[in-house]
Amino acid sequence: MVHGRVSRLSVHDVRFPTSLGGHGSDAMHTDPDYSAAYVVLETDAEDGLKGYGITFTLGRGTEVVVCAVNALAPHVLNKDLGDIVGDFRGFYRQLTSDGQLRWIGAEKGVVHLAAAAVLSAAWAPWAKQEGKPLWKLLVDMDPQTLVSCIDFRYITDVLTEEEACEILRQSQVGKKERVEEQMLAHGYPAYTMSCAWLGHPDATLKQLCSEALKDSWTRFKVKVGANLQDDIRRCQLIKNMIGPEKTLMMDANQRWDVPEAVEWVTKLAEFKPLWTEEPTSPDDILGHAAVSKALAPLGIGVAIGEQCHNRVIFKQLLEAKALKFLQIDSCRLGSVNENLSVLLMAKKFEIRVPWGFPVCPHLGGVGLCELVQHLIMFDFISVSASQDRMCEYVDHLHEHFKHPVLIREASYMPPKDAGYSTEMKEDSVKRHRYPDGEVWKKLLTAQGN
Amino acid sequence: MVHGRVSRLSVHDVRFPTSLGGHGSDAMHTDPDYSAAYVVLETDAEDGLKGYGITFTLGRGTEVVVCAVNALAPHVLNKDLGDIVGDFRGFYRQLTSDGQLRWIGAEKGVVHLAAAAVLSAAWAPWAKQEGKPLWKLLVDMDPQTLVSCIDFRYITDVLTEEEACEILRQSQVGKKERVEEQMLAHGYPAYTMSCAWLGHPDATLKQLCSEALKDSWTRFKVKVGANLQDDIRRCQLIKNMIGPEKTLMMDANQRWDVPEAVEWVTKLAEFKPLWTEEPTSPDDILGHAAVSKALAPLGIGVAIGEQCHNRVIFKQLLEAKALKFLQIDSCRLGSVNENLSVLLMAKKFEIRVPWGFPVCPHLGGVGLCELVQHLIMFDFISVSASQDRMCEYVDHLHEHFKHPVLIREASYMPPKDAGYSTEMKEDSVKRHRYPDGEVWKKLLTAQGN
Repeated sequence: MVHGRVSRLSVHDVRFPTSLGGHGSDAMHTDPDYSAAYVVLETDAEDGLKGYGITFTLGRGTEVVVCAVNALAPHVLNKDLGDIVGDFRGFYRQLTSDGQLRWIGAEKGVVHLAAAAVLSAAWAPWAKQEGKPLWKLLVDMDPQTLVSCIDFRYITDVLTEEEACEILRQSQVGKKERVEEQMLAHGYPAYTMSCAWLGHPDATLKQLCSEALKDSWTRFKVKVGANLQDDIRRCQLIKNMIGPEKTLMMDANQRWDVPEAVEWVTKLAEFKPLWTEEPTSPDDILGHAAVSKALAPLGIGVAIGEQCHNRVIFKQLLEAKALKFLQIDSCRLGSVNENLSVLLMAKKFEIRVPWGFPVCPHLGGVGLCELVQHLIMFDFISVSASQDRMCEYVDHLHEHFKHPVLIREASYMPPKDAGYSTEMKEDSVKRHRYPDGEVWKKLLTAQGN
Repeated sequence: MVHGRVSRLSVHDVRFPTSLGGHGSDAMHTDPDYSAAYVVLETDAEDGLKGYGITFTLGRGTEVVVCAVNALAPHVLNKDLGDIVGDFRGFYRQLTSDGQLRWIGAEKGVVHLAAAAVLSAAWAPWAKQEGKPLWKLLVDMDPQTLVSCIDFRYITDVLTEEEACEILRQSQVGKKERVEEQMLAHGYPAYTMSCAWLGHPDATLKQLCSEALKDSWTRFKVKVGANLQDDIRRCQLIKNMIGPEKTLMMDANQRWDVPEAVEWVTKLAEFKPLWTEEPTSPDDILGHAAVSKALAPLGIGVAIGEQCHNRVIFKQLLEAKALKFLQIDSCRLGSVNENLSVLLMAKKFEIRVPWGFPVCPHLGGVGLCELVQHLIMFDFISVSASQDRMCEYVDHLHEHFKHPVLIREASYMPPKDAGYSTEMKEDSVKRHRYPDGEVWKKLLTAQGN
């Protein structure tokens, strides 16, 4: 087990000026600067062990998350990492249910993003000291220990601790083959979101799409929702390039109201998208259920999750059959702990629908690909054992990570380095610190700020 | 119409050490220090007009909300208040949908609490310059102008702008009488939450209950959920004092899971509570629907809302008949603008159930009573016209406000001062600023910090 007393918590406001190139732009987030609140836990362990945690943000507001991380610091400082992970459920509860802080959450928005970063900063050194990548740590863990990391508060009406253990036990069959013959040999299938950001002009879209085809990509997602005529033109353009055999998905990023979503997507149905993502507010469970029902006859599923703020929302989306594809996010939810509960609920509910609620996570941003790959590999090996799933991929900002993702033939290859792939390069952090890093100093000077 | 360019925004971290006396304590918030992020907008108007806004917090974390208010400042600074309230829907949308900031919300948690404070700081001077208390400003406003303050995004599937106007037009009948013969003469009925905080020992509870009876209170709420035997003893004690004719309500502050809520409340059913409040997670619409269904045969309703984070959640609670009593909160929701939408949705849905979804707001904290009284009076006069409603009352911290609430015979009397009752006394703010105000300096020194 990991050990080392946390002697210091520092948190950095790291921003990348992605808005300059239109990368990451969609119908609701028109000028994101992909950013992160980056947490470093220092310990007094003899090996100099550190814990790195991260939460993804879009630029402005990163300083608010940084402030929330500092508010959580007293729950971490001077604790031994062994005690933290030894009672991970208790630690999760402590972070997310602080009697004063929970008023400004609870388990949602800023404080939950901050908690996710802190929790990840505890998972990472555990895997590191065990000498395993996180996915392997989880895969090798006995079911009882694994579920002891989960806070079942508010979900026992659909999943108890005992049921969670039973799911994990039943999934032992074929585990070794799934690791060796599938993950290590072929990796985890991915789709690309790099070609069709809303801010990309048609020429860029064409060029990126053509390059992606050369790189063996077979599944493509396009941002929609701002202007119907533009959507039709862009979808036609991509569909012409990828042909009828390859897969297209659409992402509206919450742009529509419920009736509008149905109407708009119906007009794009000719492009046969596999799913329409975030058609409306991520808080609207019943709204998504209505959209799902209306689009089912067209063969279009609803995908949602990147802004669903906790396990209680996912519980209801599953109960109401409001989605077809479930998209977890490693930082929006409370790190590994809460994601585990969602993966297990999805498994529990899979028999209720013919489509089995495939988990197809949200990735991209800063570090999301690095983190979520661990969770989805664990899901395939130890929970779902299902091959109908795929992971998002976005091809930027990986160079700032010490152990960036490895993509081969449009698949994520299992990380081999011990840890949770959360560590950023020191120089990257230093240069992109907002507002005093070199990159921002230059930009802000140029803007006359 | 109001005018004055916003020349400065300042925001204060104001905290009251209420945890020292166990005031405000419940099953989930055991040691709250009632606090506020207090916003002051200065303008260049000739009359020196200022805008005061407030959002309620529980101590730690107030600094995070302060940070979020500062992040919103660029949307307010150098704007004319006339332009802001002249396109209030647009301003609401701008504050809540900033393309970078919305990632850490959106419309929930820290950023939404911050937006509420800023929005209130724009409503207050509008009412002030019109020379009216806010409730009167709203009551006198023509329906078209009033609905132009509401962002209907994500709720058009249940309430359109036209329907909202129609509701307001239909409620014109009898308005004058409701103002003069009811509100001005008798005020708005209230219930007290001051007697039975969880941290109060039985002797305190008895004494406060006895005083409240003398002060004409007829409706009492008790905190429950931490320990069943304690709950039974305390409920018995209060019931014995108030007798069978007066009303008892229970508040669990989200302590239970769904099955536990049903089981626990069933064991308290002998005390015949009118409602059980926040039985489980405020995010759990379907869970509350299940609890509502299970408790209906016992004659116990579910009340919820103080931590429901936006209109989309209320829309679904109404759709799913998940509540009987709807509890708006003036700061959790996006100020007057978003509260209007919830009041109108409740009206729209009232015909769907025999009990008509009475709105019984959450008050207490710092300033909630001062603010919400305006909304509920508007609701009675211009929307619901219903007399089956009541407002919470908590009897502390009013002395820090320039225009504190006036309670007469257990009723809120309509405020007469122009504005939104949001202004705090300068000296109170100064003394309670955290951590450098005199009160905190002394306390922190005594604690050795």
